[in-house]
Amino acid sequence: MIGIAVVGYGYWGPNLVRNIMDLPDARLVYVCDLAVDKLSGVKARYPGVEVTTDFDEILRDPRVQAVAIATPVSSHFKLALKAMMAGKHVFVEKPMAASVEEARRMVDEANRRGLVLAVDHTFVHTGAVRKMRDIVQSDFGDMYYYDSVRVNLGLFQRDVSVVWDLAVHDLAIMDYVLAEKPVAVSATGIGHISGQPENIAYLTLFFESKLIAHVHVNWLAPVKIRRTLVGGSARMIVYDDLEPSEKIKVYDKGITLNDGPVNAADEAYQMMVGYRIGDMHAPQLDMREALATELREFVQSIQDHTQPTVDGMAGVRVVSILEAATQSITQRGRIIELEQSRLIA
Amino acid sequence: MIGIAVVGYGYWGPNLVRNIMDLPDARLVYVCDLAVDKLSGVKARYPGVEVTTDFDEILRDPRVQAVAIATPVSSHFKLALKAMMAGKHVFVEKPMAASVEEARRMVDEANRRGLVLAVDHTFVHTGAVRKMRDIVQSDFGDMYYYDSVRVNLGLFQRDVSVVWDLAVHDLAIMDYVLAEKPVAVSATGIGHISGQPENIAYLTLFFESKLIAHVHVNWLAPVKIRRTLVGGSARMIVYDDLEPSEKIKVYDKGITLNDGPVNAADEAYQMMVGYRIGDMHAPQLDMREALATELREFVQSIQDHTQPTVDGMAGVRVVSILEAATQSITQRGRIIELEQSRLIA
Amino acid sequence: MIGIAVVGYGYWGPNLVRNIMDLPDARLVYVCDLAVDKLSGVKARYPGVEVTTDFDEILRDPRVQAVAIATPVSSHFKLALKAMMAGKHVFVEKPMAASVEEARRMVDEANRRGLVLAVDHTFVHTGAVRKMRDIVQSDFGDMYYYDSVRVNLGLFQRDVSVVWDLAVHDLAIMDYVLAEKPVAVSATGIGHISGQPENIAYLTLFFESKLIAHVHVNWLAPVKIRRTLVGGSARMIVYDDLEPSEKIKVYDKGITLNDGPVNAADEAYQMMVGYRIGDMHAPQLDMREALATELREFVQSIQDHTQPTVDGMAGVRVVSILEAATQSITQRGRIIELEQSRLIA
Amino acid sequence: MIGIAVVGYGYWGPNLVRNIMDLPDARLVYVCDLAVDKLSGVKARYPGVEVTTDFDEILRDPRVQAVAIATPVSSHFKLALKAMMAGKHVFVEKPMAASVEEARRMVDEANRRGLVLAVDHTFVHTGAVRKMRDIVQSDFGDMYYYDSVRVNLGLFQRDVSVVWDLAVHDLAIMDYVLAEKPVAVSATGIGHISGQPENIAYLTLFFESKLIAHVHVNWLAPVKIRRTLVGGSARMIVYDDLEPSEKIKVYDKGITLNDGPVNAADEAYQMMVGYRIGDMHAPQLDMREALATELREFVQSIQDHTQPTVDGMAGVRVVSILEAATQSITQRGRIIELEQSRLIA
Repeated sequence: MIGIAVVGYGYWGPNLVRNIMDLPDARLVYVCDLAVDKLSGVKARYPGVEVTTDFDEILRDPRVQAVAIATPVSSHFKLALKAMMAGKHVFVEKPMAASVEEARRMVDEANRRGLVLAVDHTFVHTGAVRKMRDIVQSDFGDMYYYDSVRVNLGLFQRDVSVVWDLAVHDLAIMDYVLAEKPVAVSATGIGHISGQPENIAYLTLFFESKLIAHVHVNWLAPVKIRRTLVGGSARMIVYDDLEPSEKIKVYDKGITLNDGPVNAADEAYQMMVGYRIGDMHAPQLDMREALATELREFVQSIQDHTQPTVDGMAGVRVVSILEAATQSITQRGRIIELEQSRLIA
Repeated sequence: MIGIAVVGYGYWGPNLVRNIMDLPDARLVYVCDLAVDKLSGVKARYPGVEVTTDFDEILRDPRVQAVAIATPVSSHFKLALKAMMAGKHVFVEKPMAASVEEARRMVDEANRRGLVLAVDHTFVHTGAVRKMRDIVQSDFGDMYYYDSVRVNLGLFQRDVSVVWDLAVHDLAIMDYVLAEKPVAVSATGIGHISGQPENIAYLTLFFESKLIAHVHVNWLAPVKIRRTLVGGSARMIVYDDLEPSEKIKVYDKGITLNDGPVNAADEAYQMMVGYRIGDMHAPQLDMREALATELREFVQSIQDHTQPTVDGMAGVRVVSILEAATQSITQRGRIIELEQSRLIA
Repeated sequence: MIGIAVVGYGYWGPNLVRNIMDLPDARLVYVCDLAVDKLSGVKARYPGVEVTTDFDEILRDPRVQAVAIATPVSSHFKLALKAMMAGKHVFVEKPMAASVEEARRMVDEANRRGLVLAVDHTFVHTGAVRKMRDIVQSDFGDMYYYDSVRVNLGLFQRDVSVVWDLAVHDLAIMDYVLAEKPVAVSATGIGHISGQPENIAYLTLFFESKLIAHVHVNWLAPVKIRRTLVGGSARMIVYDDLEPSEKIKVYDKGITLNDGPVNAADEAYQMMVGYRIGDMHAPQLDMREALATELREFVQSIQDHTQPTVDGMAGVRVVSILEAATQSITQRGRIIELEQSRLIA
Repeated sequence: MIGIAVVGYGYWGPNLVRNIMDLPDARLVYVCDLAVDKLSGVKARYPGVEVTTDFDEILRDPRVQAVAIATPVSSHFKLALKAMMAGKHVFVEKPMAASVEEARRMVDEANRRGLVLAVDHTFVHTGAVRKMRDIVQSDFGDMYYYDSVRVNLGLFQRDVSVVWDLAVHDLAIMDYVLAEKPVAVSATGIGHISGQPENIAYLTLFFESKLIAHVHVNWLAPVKIRRTLVGGSARMIVYDDLEPSEKIKVYDKGITLNDGPVNAADEAYQMMVGYRIGDMHAPQLDMREALATELREFVQSIQDHTQPTVDGMAGVRVVSILEAATQSITQRGRIIELEQSRLIA
């Protein structure tokens, strides 16, 4: 039975609390937040859980073996480091930290102390994304592209840009689904409100191979879109997270290259490129709540001394792209090499 | 009664012929193509029209006042220039020419001789795009973004990339809809078939103001998408060309900025940014065939000595972006200033 | 402050409890159910609420002024009658009772004792249905038809057919939206599982005017559909409850009758019937939870001695159609006059 | 080489002409219509085809072996009978005739003379409907239901109701797809324009088995819907003819009945009915034009002395349902037995 404390009871904290309450092998010991009124709400709803505004109280308590951090990004590093220094395992919201430097130091600390450091890339634990990875990594042929659109009329965040708020999801999914890791990024974007970070952005990721990836995020769209196209030489996928059940559609479509001189006349050329249009298939998906799966795995990792699916290095890779993209945007698309990324892949 | 010759009877030529046949103030005199079998098909269907493989025969014929050019892009310049030098007005397919240099010389020639030079940016003449321009240029507030996706499993072209084949449509629409012209472009893309041009590309366009534009084109997508999002401070538009009738949806959505200190605490900040979610409205559209409208206007321009809606300079602006984007792609997103563009706007 | 007891804590009871907890002018005193384990769940979650398996205990308690009944249909009559005989106001799930006879006796009892009897036709309190009524009852011209489809792979119910489970929603909405009440019903349907009630059914409702209504319900559909078409001479509506925000679309479409002899030749006839195709408009809707609105109104009705929007007679009218449709189905569509319905309209 | 005459050059005739022109084994000899201006249009477009207003001229001409009749329904019987009496094979538009009596006499005449009598149930020859039949007649388990919606803002017809204009398509498809034939029909509907036939109608078809079928047709709907749901114990299909390519979706969904007492308590009952939710599959479809396939088969039937897929008896079965449904509507849903239908199946 693993004792857990949840730190931060804002937007995501209540979901952590609800799911930890239902875990068979864990016990929610504390909820910690600076807002006293939120804590009294927790107490009314879960009388058996202790509440506190004092993070250090949690760290001193031997009943707490793990801390789940759901505070603003800027505090992740400090809180996670203190927790690990007190010997606690850590489950931290995405993005893992506010910089690659911070993220790396978190990984180092976890490694040094043999602690589990899991990053909450929630989508990775959905049935849709797991199925997508299965298909992409089995019979997809050559990887051609990964293209994602994640837009809506969204809550403006004061401290982070739309890249750190929305693109982080796509980068996390991509890190899990694709075997290859990106080597460079070119990004563009703009903030429409004076003094505020970007609310619209476009990221292109380059790879060693001919794979190209692109992410479009926007907080000012009139409609909500959550759609990813993945293309390979043997299969193509449309992943639409807003579809109630058929979220993943697999197409047996593509082109086939026939023999023939490339500089033949027009008709001959079109015969050289053939088009394959076959069946479409929407596999049944595991519809269980991703966060439940993820927290169960986190507890399991502590008990079995294993690495979680999304470990600290996955978090570092995602933060390194966020950081590079942010830099590229200020230089209107200048290519930024992800050198660290290659080292840490 | 304006006598017209159609040059090039491949994919688009038959549409030109069919529409010119129905024009009240024009007469189709010739169809010219190098393929004799195509010409015999024309003769069987339209016995009253003359067919020829000899472009010069057309130029010599005084019954021909205008030439409609629907040949591959690489030949536009040479054919248009010869036609104008023979005193013929010109209607030329998009993209207008294979380079800005060529496009500018075509404009110069038309100006010098007082001839009409119209570029076939067909979408500009649809009811949907005209309505979009009306809305954008009347009560849209500040322009925020223009974002377009044009993807499908498309015919690979040997001589032009997906940028010159598909993005040209979006650039032509944008040139018509937006009052402001772009000043720089950053583009990325890749070709998945060895020795062939790009089949997937992403273009970001920058403007003097805070407007940003983006175009995503792809010949290897499993589904067909034709969707443009346009955002302003007072209105937002979704233009979906695949909708049978409600192609334009106008949203009364956006954010409103309230007074208040920007660096207030989180809740205070969210109160500062308010969200406006109002009605949606899909105006009735003129559903007449765009090409018919466009050709009628071309004939009218000749008769009245007026400029067509899409004149040579519009064509030059579009080609200048295509050229800059192509250059940017080879340098993985490096920003290319559209200096000429500003001069020619 | 009105004291309320919730009776029945199965599928819908928890929603009643959650919403009553949030009402400013009401207090949840009891939750009553025969299943002791469900009650202990309530106690754990809401320590301040009393739980009991004894309905009579509630009736004796003077702190309870109103009872919300969410038990199976077959028990509605007995429980509601006992509650009213003990002087309690009643909020009862749909369908109100298992027969017209029962439903009428409930209304009589409420009238005799001056008690509020509200029937939980939840959809009537949604922003979408309220907006639909506004439009239909203002500028709709002549009413032509009301057509609803409500199908999905649904939970088979042992005691009620798909008509009593799903069509009841459409009949409740229709009773609220349409000014005119139906005078007869013809229904068809079938049960595919031996010994079980119908799992697919079609109801046609006739009116004194030329209005016709139809409801299609099905528990064995592979896709979920919730779509209603409403046609009038001046406007038409599509109400799609699965749309996240644009649930109501209002079309300025229809036919216009021109003068001219009806037995003219074909072309002349087509000129006589003109087609009007105008704008579409999706009004912004109140997205608040219907059940909260409804319960607030119930409490208000008790305090102010007013009738709720959905009173007992609305419940009677809906049950009378359910009863007639069930009878018609056994006779393969035989028309059943709704004589009572006309008296009670 | 079969010589064919097309009679009637209104809405559908031009499609017949265009497709016959492309048939390798047929020759279009005549187009016949009473409107002289239509004939001159034919002559201009197809100089090699003879035109006439005199039907008897066609019958006398020995070059004509077959007649394709695309005139209004009321004239089908007279024209087809005269043609067959002159020894010509007949291809006749749907519905085959204005009454069962007429349709049967047409079949008798064809049989007596050994002529091919094909009825133009076009949809039967689409890739979508053929695929649907394959699936339904192979691994569908018990047939549960066939439900079709065919609505739009449609051209009002003076001489026929929406049943004869639109429902005829669904009945033709159903006759082809389902192995079992209906035994009775109950229909409701109404005409909203004084003195005109029904513009909205609902048909329920009963079968010997537990299969039920329903058709909803409407000329006054604000949106176009063409959707059929087909349910069986082993598979379910959604056929949406407006989908550009994925017109047929096959669902591995349904219920499974477990052992257990039917009158067990609620939870036990729900365990008895299990829900199967599996993959969805959209097979690739033959997208060739149905009319071309159909006319090729007609010519082949003449050459090989074989029966076409849609022979006269299929036409009779469809007309017998149309006739019965029309009668049922006037009696507000009264069941009409399709006795003839059983004899002729």
